[in-house]
Amino acid sequence: MNFSQSFIPTLREVPADAVISSHRLMFRAGLLRKLGNGLFAYLPLGLRSFKKVERIIREEMDAAGFLEIKPTVVVPGELWKESGRWDSMGESLLKVKNRLDADFVVSPTAEEAVTGIVRDELSSYRQLPLLLYQINTKYRDEIRPRYGVMRGREFVMKDAYSFHADDESLDKTYEDMGRAYRRIFKRCGLSVIPVKADSGAMGGSGSEEFMVESGIGDNTLLLCGGNRSQSCAYAANVEKAECRDDFVPCPSPGEAALLAAHTPPIEKIDTPQVKTIDALCAFMGSDAKQFIKALVYRAVNVEPAAGAEGPVVPEAFYAVCIRGDMEVSEAKLASRLRASEVSLASQADTERLCGAPLGFIGPVGLTSLPVIADASVTAIHDGVTGALEKDVHYKHVAYGRDFKAQMVTDVREVKAGDGCPLCAAELYTKKGNELGHIFKLGKKYTTSMNASYLDENGKSHIPTMGCYGIGLDRTMASVIEEHHDDDGIIWPVTIAPYQAIIVPIKYEGAMKTEADKLCQYLEAAGIEVLLDDRDERPGVKFKDADLLGIPYRVVIGDKNLAGDTPKVEIKRRREKEARLVELDKAAEELTSNIMADFAGLNG
Amino acid sequence: MNFSQSFIPTLREVPADAVISSHRLMFRAGLLRKLGNGLFAYLPLGLRSFKKVERIIREEMDAAGFLEIKPTVVVPGELWKESGRWDSMGESLLKVKNRLDADFVVSPTAEEAVTGIVRDELSSYRQLPLLLYQINTKYRDEIRPRYGVMRGREFVMKDAYSFHADDESLDKTYEDMGRAYRRIFKRCGLSVIPVKADSGAMGGSGSEEFMVESGIGDNTLLLCGGNRSQSCAYAANVEKAECRDDFVPCPSPGEAALLAAHTPPIEKIDTPQVKTIDALCAFMGSDAKQFIKALVYRAVNVEPAAGAEGPVVPEAFYAVCIRGDMEVSEAKLASRLRASEVSLASQADTERLCGAPLGFIGPVGLTSLPVIADASVTAIHDGVTGALEKDVHYKHVAYGRDFKAQMVTDVREVKAGDGCPLCAAELYTKKGNELGHIFKLGKKYTTSMNASYLDENGKSHIPTMGCYGIGLDRTMASVIEEHHDDDGIIWPVTIAPYQAIIVPIKYEGAMKTEADKLCQYLEAAGIEVLLDDRDERPGVKFKDADLLGIPYRVVIGDKNLAGDTPKVEIKRRREKEARLVELDKAAEELTSNIMADFAGLNG
Repeated sequence: MNFSQSFIPTLREVPADAVISSHRLMFRAGLLRKLGNGLFAYLPLGLRSFKKVERIIREEMDAAGFLEIKPTVVVPGELWKESGRWDSMGESLLKVKNRLDADFVVSPTAEEAVTGIVRDELSSYRQLPLLLYQINTKYRDEIRPRYGVMRGREFVMKDAYSFHADDESLDKTYEDMGRAYRRIFKRCGLSVIPVKADSGAMGGSGSEEFMVESGIGDNTLLLCGGNRSQSCAYAANVEKAECRDDFVPCPSPGEAALLAAHTPPIEKIDTPQVKTIDALCAFMGSDAKQFIKALVYRAVNVEPAAGAEGPVVPEAFYAVCIRGDMEVSEAKLASRLRASEVSLASQADTERLCGAPLGFIGPVGLTSLPVIADASVTAIHDGVTGALEKDVHYKHVAYGRDFKAQMVTDVREVKAGDGCPLCAAELYTKKGNELGHIFKLGKKYTTSMNASYLDENGKSHIPTMGCYGIGLDRTMASVIEEHHDDDGIIWPVTIAPYQAIIVPIKYEGAMKTEADKLCQYLEAAGIEVLLDDRDERPGVKFKDADLLGIPYRVVIGDKNLAGDTPKVEIKRRREKEARLVELDKAAEELTSNIMADFAGLNG
Repeated sequence: MNFSQSFIPTLREVPADAVISSHRLMFRAGLLRKLGNGLFAYLPLGLRSFKKVERIIREEMDAAGFLEIKPTVVVPGELWKESGRWDSMGESLLKVKNRLDADFVVSPTAEEAVTGIVRDELSSYRQLPLLLYQINTKYRDEIRPRYGVMRGREFVMKDAYSFHADDESLDKTYEDMGRAYRRIFKRCGLSVIPVKADSGAMGGSGSEEFMVESGIGDNTLLLCGGNRSQSCAYAANVEKAECRDDFVPCPSPGEAALLAAHTPPIEKIDTPQVKTIDALCAFMGSDAKQFIKALVYRAVNVEPAAGAEGPVVPEAFYAVCIRGDMEVSEAKLASRLRASEVSLASQADTERLCGAPLGFIGPVGLTSLPVIADASVTAIHDGVTGALEKDVHYKHVAYGRDFKAQMVTDVREVKAGDGCPLCAAELYTKKGNELGHIFKLGKKYTTSMNASYLDENGKSHIPTMGCYGIGLDRTMASVIEEHHDDDGIIWPVTIAPYQAIIVPIKYEGAMKTEADKLCQYLEAAGIEVLLDDRDERPGVKFKDADLLGIPYRVVIGDKNLAGDTPKVEIKRRREKEARLVELDKAAEELTSNIMADFAGLNG
């Protein structure tokens, strides 16, 4: 393909709002342009790379036995009302009313649409497992889209859904997908950190996220700093991370009673103006670990407990207790409560609901709110907490004796320095962007949307589900984040829009003849070649070649062509030095280099 | 691919709302399912065929030098406000407000998005012509979606846009596209009727529609019934069709004055209760051709005249005059007025605006409304028309002398039996569905959206545009409409989801061994094969094979395998008879038959 025919509007300027490398380079190299806030149009060069990402994903999904389907992008709101997510999804769900006042959703994901299709067709266990995927446009109404396609509003996602008769079958597909995802990202040239979102300690369903390290990542990852060679490779999203407890968690009722029996009776103490944990530590001369911190949280769109029926509750308040030196993870809390979002209640709400001023909230005698206790609290048998009246605290508080929680769970935010839950070494943190996610969904959608099948004996069952997503735009941008330098992109050969660029110093005479010949030869060998036929100075062409990041550059100049053995210059984009190669051997050498690169990534 | 792994939920029942063959068969053969009114999900088998249509279109667009891009599906409303279509497009445009109250459009087409991209990148004549296309999701808010994907709400369109420095360049690309479209439809096995939407008589821009004949087509086509061998192949959409005039059109001012001079002075006549043309003919004993029929039309979203500035007028009324024996074409009228829609005004509006009762409306002395005259009216120099008062008409009315129109144009609805505009033979009609449309757009969008380029001399110009669309879903459904029988689909080999289906009478023993071997051989040769491995009765498998419409069926049975020369039965889906072929030669024969079929269609 000739450069002059390819509509590649390269830029020397960096767009003002582009703060990360991939965003800058995708604009500068003419891969895409902005249509609106969070809305980007791929230009021809960008689309070539985008389609390669798409093809790699499709090949791996097909190889894993998944069948491709194509639901619509605009989906009836009814399906989302059935699943409950019409209400619980939050404001990022783009709802539309059409001219007939019917409700629609511009799909951010397709559990509803796919379950809606499958339930009507599923009758027998013989149809299971049923493995379906699509690669299609999605829309999420990001309130602050930024970083180019890394956090856009419209994007393309590969989303897959599997339906199974039993957990064993789901486990197998989940494992298959884990392997497929590793291959996909390897073929794209990406270093991903697979993050187990659940170590198995909590049992039940599994979930794994595929992260790339990124300074602007919207996820915090906790990684084990222990000796990797000893095989502890714990990695978790902070939203789900656990840590080695430095307390005896959840004593049994017998143990708790025993501990409480050794604790003096609960007692009120005057603590005038002592409102914070730090002030309390100073006042009492003790450690924050002795305190039971109680906070009121507001939860939005709370779904009924698993298996339970009932409507989504738009707003609910909870008192959450945790040991004084720890912080509550809002993500974990939201997950435990099955809420779409939680945040600290306002001071006014907190004081109104507890009937006590901020600083003196505590779980003892609190009946106006459900109490959620982090597991750390259950190990406190001689603690201090607010007494629900101004300037008063309780001391000698024992969990189980003086108060009980409606729910004891893990809502602790894990931090760098906490102990690895597997090997107790110190955890450290990284920022990451999520490219993919595989997830054992269970029966949430098949239950709410009434999917069922008959077993060998004609008995009806609800199938269990898995779901598996990859963001294509983000994956492509992440390849650039990982593979670039100051001059431009350095594409892995598998994703490069072209594998070779031929740059004649001037596109005329012998240089043109040899450039055309080499181009034809390479194209016949299946190599994708961009031929820079533009009437530009060599410096401009070299700069553009570096910016575009084509893996191999061949420079054809008069000087090197002259003489007994005409030569051309071949340079790998990722190496500094070019080398002279005999013209007659150039095509063969390029082909074999490119094939070797492919083999290295696809292997 | 094994049938049991392919999720092909065939149906014996016909869905109640499926009234056309393609809709029925796409459901029965498990190609798609309904997600909502006008919203369909392609299942794996349907998507295979859909992607083949897509690939054929992509290959032909690439071959024509077009570059593929990917704008978003959800597009900022701002772009549509710039072009003016935010207001003028009518209610089929799906408008969306997001959480930040910003306006968006779910794209029905992409002139705005593409012109918006191009204007920012276009600087020099050297970048022209610029030829871009996408194959992407579109949404049109059909008020009554029906006939399955033939008239759905969400669909996929290939839409291409070309930008040119001059008309000559546009003409060349337009001709290229005409040829590409013919190839695309031929490769899909479709008989299309290319309909010139403008014969050249009107000059200016060109437009060609690619129609398939269909009983439920929403277009009426007028075709010349003359001797085709004499090369008159006039074919036009009724919305644009012209016909040979049986009157002298548009006399010059001098001629009109001369004709009027031979007409007695205009005169009122009493016509009590005579309100219709028929009644008037009977009353006056004359011919409808003598009458000037005047009708009031309501136009919606009227754009300013070409080149003129100004806002879109939401509603406007016009008096339209036409010869008494003719009908007004609302489509032509809307096009002439640059309105998104026109319809007859209500009786109340008509009487209020004209100050006279229905049945007595006429153009003489009518000052409250702009008068539009069909060219037929200008030839009437001794006519009859309503006198704008109850029970009174005028006679001896002469155009030019007694009244004049603000616009004289062609708004006549052409009918079967009218004369072909090229050869005067009688026209006849067919119903058709539009699959594609190529159109010389001119400077409408480049002007309103401020696109420009500099010529060799640094002078700024506005580029001219062409646009070229094909509906993919409709094309696929039309292939089924054209290729089916009572038993199911009869796919052309190019669009078939699989080219061959192997049906072992029972999938066991020698039959299984030979079926697997044949499948492997064919797949190695690049043939796509469906192997019916299901534990079903042969009758069920045969019925499904016919329903799915796979071009070649191979039946492998114990009886034919026995004996010295084992045989299998090969049957083309489109032929009645099967033939026995030696097992050893079956693969080779199938391969060569399938290749021959491909060659025939791909030509």
